Amino acid sequence: MDIAGLKRELEGLKIEDNPAIVKQKSRDFFWYSPVLKRQLDHVTADLVVSPRDEAEVIRVLKACYGLGVPVTPRGSGTGNYGQAMPLSGGVVLNLAEFNRVKSIARGRVVVEPGAILAEIDRQTRPGGQEIRLHPSTYNTASAAGFIAGGSGGCGSIRWGGLRNIGNVLGLRVVTMEEEPRVLQLKGRDLMKVMHAYGTNGIVTEVEMPLTAAYDWVDVIAGFDNYMKAVRFANLIANQDGLLLKELATVAAPVPYDYFLRHRKFLKRKDSVALIMVAPHALEPLLTLAAEEKAEILFRSDIATAEEKKGLPPLFELTWNHTTLRGLRVDPTITYLQVLYPFPSHVEGVEKMTRIFGDEVPGHLEFQRFDGNVCCSGLPIVRFTTEERLDEIVRIHEDNGCPIFNPHRYTLEEGGMKRTDAVQLAFKRDADPKGLLNPGKMIAWEDPDYDWRSDKVYLFPGLQAAAG
Amino acid sequence: MDIAGLKRELEGLKIEDNPAIVKQKSRDFFWYSPVLKRQLDHVTADLVVSPRDEAEVIRVLKACYGLGVPVTPRGSGTGNYGQAMPLSGGVVLNLAEFNRVKSIARGRVVVEPGAILAEIDRQTRPGGQEIRLHPSTYNTASAAGFIAGGSGGCGSIRWGGLRNIGNVLGLRVVTMEEEPRVLQLKGRDLMKVMHAYGTNGIVTEVEMPLTAAYDWVDVIAGFDNYMKAVRFANLIANQDGLLLKELATVAAPVPYDYFLRHRKFLKRKDSVALIMVAPHALEPLLTLAAEEKAEILFRSDIATAEEKKGLPPLFELTWNHTTLRGLRVDPTITYLQVLYPFPSHVEGVEKMTRIFGDEVPGHLEFQRFDGNVCCSGLPIVRFTTEERLDEIVRIHEDNGCPIFNPHRYTLEEGGMKRTDAVQLAFKRDADPKGLLNPGKMIAWEDPDYDWRSDKVYLFPGLQAAAG
Repeated sequence: MDIAGLKRELEGLKIEDNPAIVKQKSRDFFWYSPVLKRQLDHVTADLVVSPRDEAEVIRVLKACYGLGVPVTPRGSGTGNYGQAMPLSGGVVLNLAEFNRVKSIARGRVVVEPGAILAEIDRQTRPGGQEIRLHPSTYNTASAAGFIAGGSGGCGSIRWGGLRNIGNVLGLRVVTMEEEPRVLQLKGRDLMKVMHAYGTNGIVTEVEMPLTAAYDWVDVIAGFDNYMKAVRFANLIANQDGLLLKELATVAAPVPYDYFLRHRKFLKRKDSVALIMVAPHALEPLLTLAAEEKAEILFRSDIATAEEKKGLPPLFELTWNHTTLRGLRVDPTITYLQVLYPFPSHVEGVEKMTRIFGDEVPGHLEFQRFDGNVCCSGLPIVRFTTEERLDEIVRIHEDNGCPIFNPHRYTLEEGGMKRTDAVQLAFKRDADPKGLLNPGKMIAWEDPDYDWRSDKVYLFPGLQAAAG
Repeated sequence: MDIAGLKRELEGLKIEDNPAIVKQKSRDFFWYSPVLKRQLDHVTADLVVSPRDEAEVIRVLKACYGLGVPVTPRGSGTGNYGQAMPLSGGVVLNLAEFNRVKSIARGRVVVEPGAILAEIDRQTRPGGQEIRLHPSTYNTASAAGFIAGGSGGCGSIRWGGLRNIGNVLGLRVVTMEEEPRVLQLKGRDLMKVMHAYGTNGIVTEVEMPLTAAYDWVDVIAGFDNYMKAVRFANLIANQDGLLLKELATVAAPVPYDYFLRHRKFLKRKDSVALIMVAPHALEPLLTLAAEEKAEILFRSDIATAEEKKGLPPLFELTWNHTTLRGLRVDPTITYLQVLYPFPSHVEGVEKMTRIFGDEVPGHLEFQRFDGNVCCSGLPIVRFTTEERLDEIVRIHEDNGCPIFNPHRYTLEEGGMKRTDAVQLAFKRDADPKGLLNPGKMIAWEDPDYDWRSDKVYLFPGLQAAAG
């Protein structure tokens, strides 16, 4: 690779080639997985380029296309599957400095790709609005990184996931060609680029829907039995009049052992439901909690300043932060991603809980999924060997609980994204040389890859809709 | 009844005893039903009293209690089941002039009982908020009348119905005793008074949740086959990221024959989906409409001023307004209220459509119901005899589609409200002489009435929750 030539062509742009910094900017949270840690630990780019606007992005892509240098885009590097890791070296396109909030309207916000989600809300909240969905890395994750590498998060209990039409409104995308084109995607076409890890275009603008902002109240409800917590969560998740933003359950002893800042509110036997509720929905929630004999362990609305000192917000106990807090205490653990399909999601959870016990302590995220309430799991796994991990995956799947395997770094193997003929045609069109984030889309690397299988994908293919 | 004595006691209050006006204020939309028309046409009160504040309400109740005069509260008289009709004469307590919006906060509004729903929104909209739910009589219905006599409406596709916890936050209620008490109800206790037709207390204040207000876009999508309209509606109803406020389907030829102001957009073969969608959700909706080959017959966002001249808002084609428009064209029709239970609601609709054809043209209102999307029907019935009407009811129920019979004026027979022991105990406490809206609660009149039956009630009993 002619990195020296590339540097000359990019003169005037912000470029970093210090190997230590380049390596740091070539990594994400892949080390959550002992498998990915082994496979990807050596990965590094040759250069980090940090464009500040679309014209600079186009300049980088044009130059890299000419010299055949791979480009892997990166937001804040908060992914967990090596989404933003440059498997073939080349350029990491760091979009963190291309980050303004461009316009706010009723129900809509337009931002640059590197805009931090929490910063977007800081600007929309004075008008009473906030974004619908955010990962637990709200305070660091970028808009385009979330859309290209994430799937949902807080807000999914109300709005479903990024996979659902309406949760992203528009994307501006630059192609990787001799003369890069700027595409304005809307409607179903958005799915071509969403959760594609930047393999088929560089996002330069994101339009997202906004919803009503509230001063969400953090509530932790305790139960002496994990299935009681799960049944309570399922009950409140199905209350159509109860406005929640987040609803998770975590099995004992994970809360006490790993949520160190919250430990003062917990006992080791406590399984918990973690809830973000609108202030005007708090009283109905407490009514249900009393009826179901849930013990309220924490309420941010009445906690004293002393009690709240140093406490992270509740959403930083949920989604991938649950595992992160576990890893800080016990670096030998890891996790899985499970879908417990509606309508037997509670039964599915109960079965897995019975089979695995404390080897796989439960962690569920309740969400709407194609119109119904169900839950996905991000259970902690007390890791022993890769063989046993694969066995745990197989037992889940044999019991009707599909796994989106976070120990795989390709789009397809993780089960998140079906790369069908429409998707492939778009990749051919937008990245004919295959220089964007190479190594992540199996269907591109291996023409014989069978995307027609019965595997469950979170982001389904586009062929059916197109046909 | 000592009406003369009562008048003396109420001196200074606003009283009406002109028989023509009293009769007019003793009626609601009971004439939707040929059965209720026959049964209730003669009903009239002796006096209409119009209190303007809680103190005046208390004065009326105290006086009526002393003299043993029945009191039937009334909002705007937009009910369809004789909810506000004084079966035993006495006083109609007209709350229409006790109607201020008292306070607006983030997510909450507090109003007096007679506040018109549209007027509440006029006051909350400048702050970007609106009420969650309203009937199609939005422009005339009162807050307490809706809660005491209604069940849901526009907004139910997002929030479920009034029956769901969180959709009403507080009620202030005056009891019918020698010394009337003022009760402040919250949480589960609200259910004692909701949809009880004022049989157990007079509502003097309502606290409701607010949600984000949008300039909803009215969309009419056309289909050449009713089941295509139903399947399309079911598809979009299940899109968690698609913000809708209203979603109904109406079978041909009802739209063309009865929606006279909209006839210019319709052909007689058009079955339609009636949709209120947030502006920022319009494009995703149109994407789905194109994929499903729905023909967009009307969009309020691009209709010309000329086209919109004289058009009612779309919600005035839905819920009970569909039937109302039919009755204006053909006074011999009537309607039913059907629940098509999840998950076989579409199959249930298909079966009833096949059995009845044009004798019972379909009208569905899609809504969330205990966490899932299903639909209730308000089908037009081409009425012949009461016997055939009863037979149509029976055929629905035999096929697993419960009927909430709008041709019955009691709480229980309509199937809307289970009056169990908790409910009865509350009535005994709040209205020991049984003077509030007498004749509407069978369980009160007939101690042997069996509320334990398997009948499906929209507002379930309180005994289970209390136990």
